[in-house]
Amino acid sequence: MAKIAVLGAGIMATALSFPSSENGNDVHLIGTFLDREIIDSIQKTGVHPDLGLKVNDGVTAHQLEEAAEVVHGADVVMCGVNSFGIEWAGEQLANLLEPGQKLLTITKGMRADDDGTLKLLPNVIKSYLDPELAEQISWNAITGPSIAGELAVHHDTCVVFCGHDQDDLDFIANLFRTDYYHVWTSLDFDGYETGAATKNVYAFAAGFADGMLRKAGKENDRYVMYNYSAAVFAQGQRELTSFIKLMGGNPDTATGLGGVGDMYVTSAGGRNVKAGGFVGEGVPFSEVRDRLMKGVTLEGVAAINVIGAALKPLTERGVIGPEEYPLCRFLYSVVAEDAPLEMPWDKFFGGLK
Amino acid sequence: MAKIAVLGAGIMATALSFPSSENGNDVHLIGTFLDREIIDSIQKTGVHPDLGLKVNDGVTAHQLEEAAEVVHGADVVMCGVNSFGIEWAGEQLANLLEPGQKLLTITKGMRADDDGTLKLLPNVIKSYLDPELAEQISWNAITGPSIAGELAVHHDTCVVFCGHDQDDLDFIANLFRTDYYHVWTSLDFDGYETGAATKNVYAFAAGFADGMLRKAGKENDRYVMYNYSAAVFAQGQRELTSFIKLMGGNPDTATGLGGVGDMYVTSAGGRNVKAGGFVGEGVPFSEVRDRLMKGVTLEGVAAINVIGAALKPLTERGVIGPEEYPLCRFLYSVVAEDAPLEMPWDKFFGGLK
Repeated sequence: MAKIAVLGAGIMATALSFPSSENGNDVHLIGTFLDREIIDSIQKTGVHPDLGLKVNDGVTAHQLEEAAEVVHGADVVMCGVNSFGIEWAGEQLANLLEPGQKLLTITKGMRADDDGTLKLLPNVIKSYLDPELAEQISWNAITGPSIAGELAVHHDTCVVFCGHDQDDLDFIANLFRTDYYHVWTSLDFDGYETGAATKNVYAFAAGFADGMLRKAGKENDRYVMYNYSAAVFAQGQRELTSFIKLMGGNPDTATGLGGVGDMYVTSAGGRNVKAGGFVGEGVPFSEVRDRLMKGVTLEGVAAINVIGAALKPLTERGVIGPEEYPLCRFLYSVVAEDAPLEMPWDKFFGGLK
Repeated sequence: MAKIAVLGAGIMATALSFPSSENGNDVHLIGTFLDREIIDSIQKTGVHPDLGLKVNDGVTAHQLEEAAEVVHGADVVMCGVNSFGIEWAGEQLANLLEPGQKLLTITKGMRADDDGTLKLLPNVIKSYLDPELAEQISWNAITGPSIAGELAVHHDTCVVFCGHDQDDLDFIANLFRTDYYHVWTSLDFDGYETGAATKNVYAFAAGFADGMLRKAGKENDRYVMYNYSAAVFAQGQRELTSFIKLMGGNPDTATGLGGVGDMYVTSAGGRNVKAGGFVGEGVPFSEVRDRLMKGVTLEGVAAINVIGAALKPLTERGVIGPEEYPLCRFLYSVVAEDAPLEMPWDKFFGGLK
């Protein structure tokens, strides 16, 4: 039995408490300053309001003030905030983590320096820690196709825990493995984390076709637009592979759970796909952002804004070629410049030839 | 302007007459012995009954008796039959083809020798031709995510024409390219044809999750089973990649239109997915085959029967390892032995570790 402390009580962090608590571990959810009502609800009724489910009896919920007490002595500390909270989480964890603890992050995304250098979010957290402490922490992450609610209701889910030390990975994976939560491990930390971050970029585009059909009044026609979405998916997967290479990961990682699998599930639905649907209907993205989906967390759009913006300085510096990442560049023009939805097909797949 | 003769008047063969005729080519559809009513209908009303659409004015339909006259002098001859008709098509084409003609096949699938050696369908056709004639034919094929009806109604479609001679590919591609039919070319004939054949294997499995949800009365629940389908898709894509390597193709081909793209569109729906859905509901496959979908053409099941059966002798001969292709082996046990739907998750992704 291990003690697992989770910073953040969102739906994914909470969903993971199902397999881990069923394995007899001592699981503690710590709400962020945004999670006060969630923690209240779990403490009073056991129900996570956003997930719509009662958490297991072995799971304890805590308000943020108890964080130090809860993280103290934990074997595994999870970072369960979303990408918008990663700097805040870095500040918190800098004060909470103790030497020898294993960190397990579920936050996906990137940050970029002005020169376009991309950084994975665990490395952003690391930058907040005293370097000596950072060296004594084991850095691990969960990737792969995993819709939180499906995991929480015990539907088969296959994921990859990635990290830098096989013994640590085996230890953590065994805390979570059940007959419905199938966990592989990999030392390709950079590859899996890059795949997880960039798949969100392409999920936004998965909504275009449905929006275009709605605009044309053809959403119930016999023939829809799977060909369109499949081509976008294929180009997205090609670019995801390139990003993995760019970040020093193993390109084979793009073909499994962390690549096509994760893209597949992210493209199947959710808020980013919905936002892409509005763009498909012809709505300028700024209107989606400022009116139709105002205040809604859009991880995919955030990823496009960070990664898409970085492509320009990376190209100017010659790190990447101007012909690379045509879909990501196009999505950035849609999100940042309200570009119309004219898919640059001829630039895909290495250029039309 | 070129003369294009198409053997077979099914929905895909006919859909391709839209871009080719709009480019001013002289396009002729030749019905097989199964297509008599289709040809009658097109001759009388212009409408392809299965496609539900009127073909373009520049397209001429012919009964099989006119085949020799129509194929004579054609620049491009297309083989548009389905995989069940490939031996018949080989016999026909052996008598119809003329030296210098460019053959363009759209039939997907494989045949296997008793020792498990797999053969692509264009090579099956070739085996029917006089060797001297076969040498004087240019062998090309169309692959990639393309639902026939979507192409026919001019929805954006991205495909790869593969072959052995770049000049021939450029010539043929230019006959078909339009502003909605985007054609790339590749000399990785074996890779693209293998991807096209094996993706049908895995599309069958794409129906399982929906069937399981229906059986459990959970098809309208808040949380469905995308995680399950994504993991199956990812393993399928890994195995498709292995098949491409096994057949001497370029594994990179598995990551674009001919790999993930084609699998994505094939998994989105169709008869194979429907058949997989029944299995997901718990129906033994033999009952699906002999009762629920009796007489329905199931290309995916046919591919599983051929390729899945070949894995045994290939393994015995040491050509492949016993741990390879666990999903294809499992699907074969479902289709050939009525095995229950117990997904061998632990064998996926190189084995659980």
